[in-house]
Amino acid sequence: MNLKLRRAEKKDMHSVLELIKELAIFEQEPNAVKITEEDLIKDGFGKSPAFKAFVAEMDNVIVGMALYYERYSTWEGRSIHLEDLVVKENCRSKGVGNALYTNVLKYAYDNNFKRVEWEVLDWNTRAIDFYKSTGATIFKNWRVAQIDKAALKKFVLSKSQSENNNKK
Amino acid sequence: MNLKLRRAEKKDMHSVLELIKELAIFEQEPNAVKITEEDLIKDGFGKSPAFKAFVAEMDNVIVGMALYYERYSTWEGRSIHLEDLVVKENCRSKGVGNALYTNVLKYAYDNNFKRVEWEVLDWNTRAIDFYKSTGATIFKNWRVAQIDKAALKKFVLSKSQSENNNKK
Repeated sequence: MNLKLRRAEKKDMHSVLELIKELAIFEQEPNAVKITEEDLIKDGFGKSPAFKAFVAEMDNVIVGMALYYERYSTWEGRSIHLEDLVVKENCRSKGVGNALYTNVLKYAYDNNFKRVEWEVLDWNTRAIDFYKSTGATIFKNWRVAQIDKAALKKFVLSKSQSENNNKK
Repeated sequence: MNLKLRRAEKKDMHSVLELIKELAIFEQEPNAVKITEEDLIKDGFGKSPAFKAFVAEMDNVIVGMALYYERYSTWEGRSIHLEDLVVKENCRSKGVGNALYTNVLKYAYDNNFKRVEWEVLDWNTRAIDFYKSTGATIFKNWRVAQIDKAALKKFVLSKSQSENNNKK
């Protein structure tokens, strides 16, 4: 197998977006991807890049990617968040995901990050078993909470409204 | 109540660390905090700050804080992660947490972030009910996964070892 890993560049964002969409379908959220190729280029390759990524190529075709960025733990310090780890469906079970995952962990270790974290769906037992085999811990008691753009707007505007009323 | 919210500065990191430790005790992880005041100053106030924070003062004493940083969603785009929201035990139920939370959400909205996210313990029903009342969603199927520094080192060194063996 001719597998090559390298850092993602602007020109790869079309393929990266395709992989993001493939992952969203796997995660049963086919309509969740609002982002565009232009967004990825703007956000990942500007003055203050919001993420970095590695891509995996087989015979010069991108078949997988790992996208990550820095986070901060108030217990441990600087950490890496692995946002997406995706391998094209017809290229799975060939060690591509393992190689990408290992690359991110090596990057974190070499750059003295205190930990690597990510999120996994509880029914994705194959992934969970793999992560555990590498020494990762899956936390059962923590829940992910999010407020999306529409709810954020509603909340903030309602607060402004009640502040204005209080001033009257 | 004389409550004032402002951006955290270097000189506040002693109080911020005390609040981080208080939260760790509340989260039943009293020994989890490895970080020091010096780490917080170095990581939060250098060339590329790893986090920002708001502090809440009552009568000029810090009684709470919200610590956050940027993340990136490959579905939505740039987002804010609320890492810690803490109010001193003897100052709870006075609207301090609500004010800090609102401040972070306003910051995210005003700066065009696509969402705000955080993690909450599943037994912290009071917090969960509050978050839901603001329009947030608590995801039941996502699990937080982490590989800590010791496990990271073990994994990376074992990979290097097996690579060396393959080359022999």
